[in-house]
Amino acid sequence: MARILVERPELSDRLKLTHVFNRDVSRKRADWVPASVVWTEDIDVVLAASPDVVVEVVGGVTPAREWVGGAIDRGASVVTANKMLLATHGPELLQAASRAGVRLRFEAAVGGGVPLIHGVREGLAGDVLTGVAGILNGTCNYILSRMSATSEPMDVVLRDAQRLGYAEADPTADVDGFDAAAKLVVLAGIAFHRHLRLADVPRRSIRPLTSADFTYANRLGCTIRQVSRVQQAEGGFFGFVGPALVPHGSSFGRNEGANNVVTIYGRYGGESSFSGAGAGGPATAVAVVSDLLALTRDGQGARRDADEWLPASFVAPPPLAYYLRFVVRDRPGILASIAAVLARQGINLDAVLQEPGYPKDRLPFVITVEPCEEAALLESLSELTPADWHAEPPLALPMLLGPLS
Amino acid sequence: MARILVERPELSDRLKLTHVFNRDVSRKRADWVPASVVWTEDIDVVLAASPDVVVEVVGGVTPAREWVGGAIDRGASVVTANKMLLATHGPELLQAASRAGVRLRFEAAVGGGVPLIHGVREGLAGDVLTGVAGILNGTCNYILSRMSATSEPMDVVLRDAQRLGYAEADPTADVDGFDAAAKLVVLAGIAFHRHLRLADVPRRSIRPLTSADFTYANRLGCTIRQVSRVQQAEGGFFGFVGPALVPHGSSFGRNEGANNVVTIYGRYGGESSFSGAGAGGPATAVAVVSDLLALTRDGQGARRDADEWLPASFVAPPPLAYYLRFVVRDRPGILASIAAVLARQGINLDAVLQEPGYPKDRLPFVITVEPCEEAALLESLSELTPADWHAEPPLALPMLLGPLS
Repeated sequence: MARILVERPELSDRLKLTHVFNRDVSRKRADWVPASVVWTEDIDVVLAASPDVVVEVVGGVTPAREWVGGAIDRGASVVTANKMLLATHGPELLQAASRAGVRLRFEAAVGGGVPLIHGVREGLAGDVLTGVAGILNGTCNYILSRMSATSEPMDVVLRDAQRLGYAEADPTADVDGFDAAAKLVVLAGIAFHRHLRLADVPRRSIRPLTSADFTYANRLGCTIRQVSRVQQAEGGFFGFVGPALVPHGSSFGRNEGANNVVTIYGRYGGESSFSGAGAGGPATAVAVVSDLLALTRDGQGARRDADEWLPASFVAPPPLAYYLRFVVRDRPGILASIAAVLARQGINLDAVLQEPGYPKDRLPFVITVEPCEEAALLESLSELTPADWHAEPPLALPMLLGPLS
Repeated sequence: MARILVERPELSDRLKLTHVFNRDVSRKRADWVPASVVWTEDIDVVLAASPDVVVEVVGGVTPAREWVGGAIDRGASVVTANKMLLATHGPELLQAASRAGVRLRFEAAVGGGVPLIHGVREGLAGDVLTGVAGILNGTCNYILSRMSATSEPMDVVLRDAQRLGYAEADPTADVDGFDAAAKLVVLAGIAFHRHLRLADVPRRSIRPLTSADFTYANRLGCTIRQVSRVQQAEGGFFGFVGPALVPHGSSFGRNEGANNVVTIYGRYGGESSFSGAGAGGPATAVAVVSDLLALTRDGQGARRDADEWLPASFVAPPPLAYYLRFVVRDRPGILASIAAVLARQGINLDAVLQEPGYPKDRLPFVITVEPCEEAALLESLSELTPADWHAEPPLALPMLLGPLS
């Protein structure tokens, strides 16, 4: 961010960097930053200077919450890239900003360099939005698009992703969907002015996926991506974060590497998509500077749209088609018993796929089912759990074959 | 637009429809529009009422220019969907608006429902944009993506497009690139605050394309799309509108049907893409209402970014790889004479492709050449023109194989 401000002097009549607050500033100090900038390891030095805007790119809830809250209480607007802070404390921070007569902006919190918030909040203001869906986690997309292309096992790809800096040493936040769930909560705030509790977002990990799943998905004209979506429904929202089958030709299926893509559904305008680098320093810095420039445009006389996220909750999803993958110690009667359990729950089979070349004692095969209630599916799977022929727990993935709303 | 305002009463404290100005209002009057709305066939009735905003969705330069200018001169802001008006008179209208202290907004003029202007002008304000490229004409994209999929000849596909309402009875504006060129001029205004003269945009028609071109493109891992692009260069811009080879896997190659896609290149943030319905009533209406809402947010105290398009001009493009397709009455020595002419211009051959199954007296074959100056290529083609073995004029298409900036 400092680099952009230094390299774009035409912005200097509007934006002036006054303080850098960081740990260990003696090591981080950069000689190309103007000498007038104060480097400090004490947040109170920043706040005591009464800045117009505080940019928070710390990440995490503690101590960011206290610092952001402190800045707002002292009359500073805040620009943040902190999805976790917004997902957990967005409503109260927005209220505090409103009370203090300042702004809280967060273009960098979702989709990095993808100008989602401006596009959705202003460019689609004329529409009534009904759903958002996206590939919000670049790490998962890197892993899954590479598994799809090369048939390598997950642990090999994950290790490479860690080596290349695409994944953290502890990949939990990415692969288990916490990162994407926080972004989805922020997206729902942007699109619907509603706040879904982060803990309520249905989340499934990508860890159980194997190369066999990509082989079977391919047979179905699909690949697998970590999808995040939320849609308006009677009485609330439905949605999830987790791996799902998407057609090869769809915008999600074609999204490769660490790129993010977000699709917005509107009652009038239909589908609009945004894509670009989901993360990284330069993309995040562009989003932060864009937010700072937006603050300089909003004069005191400007009308401010109420930026308030009202509480909302999840409801049961509509019927979806599912891909069910079993890995079994093969013997006669397995398919018959699965079919009987599904039939008892009123679930119709669509296809049964079994590729050759797998060992009989760890045989993966796939059943796809017609759209059914999630509850019936879960009940079927739990009825099948005690069977002694499982070599691995069964895996159920939603099949997202049509437009998402 | 009226439908959205009626169906979204929550907007009524900010937006009130007062007049509908149209030809033949007795036939067009709709009973669900509030009785307070005045329907008129006289623009002066509208202007005399001192509206805050006039929405212009007439299209074309005459008489839209006079009406928009008249509205601005009387102190009304204008929201327009008129790409041709902006491409030809954008600079003077923006100046007039600035002098009159009103705004001219045009989210609907490019990319229909794709919220490009908000995304680019505000969401990417922090970046320094270096290039824009897009598929801006839905009619051409419908024709070319269908030819790519089905190998039908252009005239069959065009007739179907006309029957389905994707193409006009006179398809010139679409297939010869006038429509896309006007949108490209507006995009350059948005991204660079520069005005390129519409007549200066290098334009090539999609009409010469045959199903053989898709066969050969496919052999090269590509398909063909009408691409519009403009990039900053030393002393000006380079760019064009016309058919080009793009890789199957690229965002342009994967864009199907009448959809639009626009990619923006920024010095810091890299590539961001926007896609969605390029045209149609509902998408255009969403863009217009979004612009109206943006006007209600801009209070008198709001800082207004200078919206001025300074004159700019095209410079010669950098070297590009080209696809050259010849249709010949076959006989010995043709390839040798083409190769000799190219060699004299310092152009290196990359590949020679000749598919079986074509008649000897109308034999299409393809030469691809390594990146070369456009001037050298044109000189080569003009040297080859007098040859008596051409069964059709040769066709040269740029090959856009990498990122566009």
